[in-house]
Amino acid sequence: MLHRVVALTLAVTAVAGPQAAAQQATQPLLGFTDAGADVQHRLEAAYDSHLDADDLAAWMHELAREPHHLGSSHDARNVETLRRWFTEWGYETEVARYDVLFPTPLTRSLRMTAPHEFTASLTELPAEGDESTASPDVLPPYNTFSPDGDVTGELVYVNYGTREDYELLARHGVDVDGKIVIARYGGVFRGVKPRLAAEHGAIGCLIYSDPADDGYHQGEVYPEGPWKGASGVQRGSIMDLPLHTGDLLTPGWASVAGARRLSRDAAPAMPTIPTLPIGHGDARPLLDAIEGSVAPAEWRGALPITYRIGPGPATVRLTVKFHWRMVTAMNVVARLEGARWPDQWVLRGNHHDAWNHGARDPISGLVATLAEAKAIAQLPEPPGRTVVFAAWGAEEHGLMGSTEWAEEHGEELTRKAVLYTNTDANGRGFLRLGGSHALTRFWTEVQRDVVDPQTGLSLADRNRARIRATGDEQSRGGLAERGLSVGALGSGSDYTAFFQHLGISSANIATSGEAPGGTYHTLYDTIEHYERFVDPGHVYGVVLAKTTGRATLRMANAPLLPFDFSDLASTIRRYVDEIEELADKQRAETARVNGLIESGQFAAALDPTKPLRPPPLREAVPHFNFAPLHNALARLDAALEGIALSPDLDAGRLDEINTLLYTAERVLLREEGLPGRPWYRHQIYSPGRYTGYGAKTLPWVREAIEQRNYDRVAPGVTALAAVLNALAERMERIKALAG
Amino acid sequence: MLHRVVALTLAVTAVAGPQAAAQQATQPLLGFTDAGADVQHRLEAAYDSHLDADDLAAWMHELAREPHHLGSSHDARNVETLRRWFTEWGYETEVARYDVLFPTPLTRSLRMTAPHEFTASLTELPAEGDESTASPDVLPPYNTFSPDGDVTGELVYVNYGTREDYELLARHGVDVDGKIVIARYGGVFRGVKPRLAAEHGAIGCLIYSDPADDGYHQGEVYPEGPWKGASGVQRGSIMDLPLHTGDLLTPGWASVAGARRLSRDAAPAMPTIPTLPIGHGDARPLLDAIEGSVAPAEWRGALPITYRIGPGPATVRLTVKFHWRMVTAMNVVARLEGARWPDQWVLRGNHHDAWNHGARDPISGLVATLAEAKAIAQLPEPPGRTVVFAAWGAEEHGLMGSTEWAEEHGEELTRKAVLYTNTDANGRGFLRLGGSHALTRFWTEVQRDVVDPQTGLSLADRNRARIRATGDEQSRGGLAERGLSVGALGSGSDYTAFFQHLGISSANIATSGEAPGGTYHTLYDTIEHYERFVDPGHVYGVVLAKTTGRATLRMANAPLLPFDFSDLASTIRRYVDEIEELADKQRAETARVNGLIESGQFAAALDPTKPLRPPPLREAVPHFNFAPLHNALARLDAALEGIALSPDLDAGRLDEINTLLYTAERVLLREEGLPGRPWYRHQIYSPGRYTGYGAKTLPWVREAIEQRNYDRVAPGVTALAAVLNALAERMERIKALAG
Repeated sequence: MLHRVVALTLAVTAVAGPQAAAQQATQPLLGFTDAGADVQHRLEAAYDSHLDADDLAAWMHELAREPHHLGSSHDARNVETLRRWFTEWGYETEVARYDVLFPTPLTRSLRMTAPHEFTASLTELPAEGDESTASPDVLPPYNTFSPDGDVTGELVYVNYGTREDYELLARHGVDVDGKIVIARYGGVFRGVKPRLAAEHGAIGCLIYSDPADDGYHQGEVYPEGPWKGASGVQRGSIMDLPLHTGDLLTPGWASVAGARRLSRDAAPAMPTIPTLPIGHGDARPLLDAIEGSVAPAEWRGALPITYRIGPGPATVRLTVKFHWRMVTAMNVVARLEGARWPDQWVLRGNHHDAWNHGARDPISGLVATLAEAKAIAQLPEPPGRTVVFAAWGAEEHGLMGSTEWAEEHGEELTRKAVLYTNTDANGRGFLRLGGSHALTRFWTEVQRDVVDPQTGLSLADRNRARIRATGDEQSRGGLAERGLSVGALGSGSDYTAFFQHLGISSANIATSGEAPGGTYHTLYDTIEHYERFVDPGHVYGVVLAKTTGRATLRMANAPLLPFDFSDLASTIRRYVDEIEELADKQRAETARVNGLIESGQFAAALDPTKPLRPPPLREAVPHFNFAPLHNALARLDAALEGIALSPDLDAGRLDEINTLLYTAERVLLREEGLPGRPWYRHQIYSPGRYTGYGAKTLPWVREAIEQRNYDRVAPGVTALAAVLNALAERMERIKALAG
Repeated sequence: MLHRVVALTLAVTAVAGPQAAAQQATQPLLGFTDAGADVQHRLEAAYDSHLDADDLAAWMHELAREPHHLGSSHDARNVETLRRWFTEWGYETEVARYDVLFPTPLTRSLRMTAPHEFTASLTELPAEGDESTASPDVLPPYNTFSPDGDVTGELVYVNYGTREDYELLARHGVDVDGKIVIARYGGVFRGVKPRLAAEHGAIGCLIYSDPADDGYHQGEVYPEGPWKGASGVQRGSIMDLPLHTGDLLTPGWASVAGARRLSRDAAPAMPTIPTLPIGHGDARPLLDAIEGSVAPAEWRGALPITYRIGPGPATVRLTVKFHWRMVTAMNVVARLEGARWPDQWVLRGNHHDAWNHGARDPISGLVATLAEAKAIAQLPEPPGRTVVFAAWGAEEHGLMGSTEWAEEHGEELTRKAVLYTNTDANGRGFLRLGGSHALTRFWTEVQRDVVDPQTGLSLADRNRARIRATGDEQSRGGLAERGLSVGALGSGSDYTAFFQHLGISSANIATSGEAPGGTYHTLYDTIEHYERFVDPGHVYGVVLAKTTGRATLRMANAPLLPFDFSDLASTIRRYVDEIEELADKQRAETARVNGLIESGQFAAALDPTKPLRPPPLREAVPHFNFAPLHNALARLDAALEGIALSPDLDAGRLDEINTLLYTAERVLLREEGLPGRPWYRHQIYSPGRYTGYGAKTLPWVREAIEQRNYDRVAPGVTALAAVLNALAERMERIKALAG
């Protein structure tokens, strides 16, 4: 186990009162000697002194005052502004440019032709008292990469449009073949909705925001409150993100000048059916005109109608046409050369492009990132390792700026990148973080040392209080057993290419949970909304900067890099246990339900006057050989057992160990990637093939079982065991070096 | 254990196909010899042949064609009709009369005075195509026993108005003292809502039906579908039913001529604050005008508004005035003298009074009861025991006809009553039954022998299929372990006085589950609605008659009465286990939450900008002495072990044993009743003090723990152990007799 020396001290971190902050100077730091930790804590105090909420406010007012989507003049101006600021603060700054496919709407039309006429407005109304919402430069609501199309068909309501939803639809005898589906936002990544609809034969897809999810059912709507009104529409990309991120025409390679480009038809992540997002004001007449079975209880939203499934008689004509063009995605990349280890890079990133004004998404995270960059540059000494700040472009349409840059610099990043920390939309609340589990203790220390301004507790203690007071039994048990945990990352922001494609240890961080609302990707994500409802006074922007800045500075200065792979090992063991349990449960449940179906009991339990039928018989679930995973984990545990790393080791050995540590996550990649999606190479974490944003851990094996592709389990186990053995081998080398 | 002889045969009752019915002639019957069972099955086949759905339809069209509430001319005519029919069929029939307090509305007015004017319509609109709903004789929506009053106050939304809801309100800093609450129907008996509101200082109470619960959120509204529209209002009594049932002025004694009567002021079950039920059309503007904290997620209904708690600014003036008068509740009681055991009575009852037309409630159950009575009278031989049919009056206002009759004849019933089987509203679906657990096997046999017309399975097998296909793990486990179970009865229909006041073994039976809707106690519970949506063709009315008729005939003819107290013993043991678990969980959870409160962690987990605060500290939960219960149960088990009852015993011993069996449930009464509610004497089953309809088993001890009245636990254990020991003693006597 790494860092055994400090483990005991950490374990006694207990409930703390407001005095916690005062104690922080005495707190040890992973990877630092006690003396070094003192120096580092003083450095961090100096760092904090350079953070100023007024800066964040001023920068937001500059960057978010006009819509600044990809290709817009204000985004270009923002890029120039960002470049100038970084340069002024002392960073070596460049703008990296990539040509990416970016359609914008020419025609958007949605008409109901039966049982009565209705024409959707497709227009978001300006909000009283929020001048931003009257801007003429707003991109209208659409889903990037919807193909052009003019389709007419009966509507089917498909709830969130997940796999389970289609299974239930089939049990109701409803087929979407040749139909247009209307799905509500939520549950899974929006791009999964038209993909699954198309897989089931649908010819078009509408996606609407139900007030149950982010409208009046949750609270007062904008401008009275933070929630979404009837005209608000969530925009968003529907590229097949779980297949790859980045430009659709250059999957897996950088979209630099002269790069090979696929034709649009050949781009594998391109959606296939016309898709349009709408507000619930436009959705209500359509949903109200659908007949057929009453929707299952869990499918019903908060519109004052009876939710029914269809198909029809509601029939709509959906017409969309786009201007398909190449635009230049621009990243601002700023470096501060490390004084001791210049070829080891600590990366920080946040995108700059927005759907419109994007005060929250992404500017709230970006201004915290800027505050961090400015404050680090103002410190008396440069960081030990090179610090790289990036403001990514074209995130909203597929994490394009970050992905293209990561693909272009893959080889160098593989050698040099120590950590990539991502931020994005931020708001008042609790610190939430996901990422590499080898950094679990590192992040716990960071949370320990930042004070929550509302309670005076450390972020760590407030998170512990949250879990203890509001968590379920499982999460409380997890906290008691393992301390604060790190979530698993799927996709949805710019860490993806670094983490799951390149195997760079990463984290995604925000404060959130006390600033909910319905403005995501709408016209209403404005400064006015942000400063009233999301983070008045930019207080939590500063909290975010304190948090990520500590991480950057510690990672940049630690003599011994603060990884602890024992946390990763125990986390993977839990995932393996989950998968075994998944298989066992699926096996027992399949046998049980098949028995009920075959005996006629399932049918007998249903109302014979209703169309709902029993599910189909399922293939019996075989037993799987998980032994290779347990053998690999045993080897990994043995390798970690007794590792005694210390920042007091001699510099030569430390250098070698550090390199082995920060590149260790690379061995969890498989060159050929996951089955059917070679771009995703990490074998521990990936976005779910059918969730999109939501993570699937040990994805090959887990999804093979979940999707009942049992033939895929054995090769998945083999691939997973291979990377686990490689990690064990890496730890064995480190142990040997540590002596 | 009783009836050990047939236990094995029962245990192998397995999943059956449509051939189950054909087998029934070979099925053994508890309490009958094999030869006797054959005779009985043939008798039941003859009984079935006299049941005719057309009869049920015709009787419903006679009885439900006009509103026939207590005191109405049509109810009086129905009483006369029922008396005539029973007499024509050969029953010795009488009409039992009781004067009961029955207020009807003179003034009902509800106006919102702030923040804007709104006057509630308080009127249900006629439904197109349903002539009944245009009847001029309809009782308008009101809650019986609301006091007169004219109150003005700010509104507070209290969700269902349960104890837990008020605890959460307090955490939001909202006090209802001096306010008018608006609660939605559901969760608990409606009468609990104004009672709890008044306990918290409220001066008035509105109760509305949210569309989430029985309106458009569930399905199409009447007349398109079965659910409740915007104007529909659930009427209903709000007397304090968990305190006693029956006339409010004669609690515990019969309201016969010359009886002592309390003044209205002294009647303990009388509500104390003006209360009015309204539809969601009237509720919406009120709820929409309430401000303050957004209601917790579980409190939100399906109106297209943001549900908020208040108080105010919505302010209403509620004015209600009633005509307080005495009216005559009339029961039709019809006897068919038993040929062998005339002093042992098998009772069947269903009320006849309705809120308005009452096609479903109660006429659907009443016409099945009539079919049963007519068919039994047509059999070639009279029943062995006396069969008593009752059509109760004044049920809707507090189970008055049945309660007064039971109180008047308490002594005789205590000696003679073998079983009381109650029915009430009925509809398409599955057989549901609750009652005495000593009859678990008896009812399983009855279900085994009636065929479900939709599936061809026995009712028992369809119920098993339902539990296996749609039940949760706990209910599936219960089925696998113990077979079909009987539910515990609280209150809400006419079994209450027989069961919980007199200790007569009872059951309440209906088919339901495939005919949901929103007509309960509204204008829309009409024949038109019933025959379209509840039980087209009166098919399940016949099923109900087959079921209850078998029970009546078996109980009337069995040489050995088919009780099995081992099922009751094991059920009570489960209840004791539940209570111990309840105490243990409450102890652990109280300690855990108190710790979080005292350490400030609970507060730290909450949003400091919101009013929601931590709960108050709770008294630590002591450990309790449950040993007396275990000792009594051990004695009971020992008494039951090895009991070998057989219908072949000599007649003298059988007579003695039968009497000891059917009066055994009486020993579960405690003369002084439950603490604070002496009328409820059964120590195993009662309506919950704060649920009203929902049952609380082992109520003294369970409610003492739930309500944290820990001083009450020890005396409750003593009282419960006493009745369990008395039951054990009774079983010891039976075993000695059985030799």
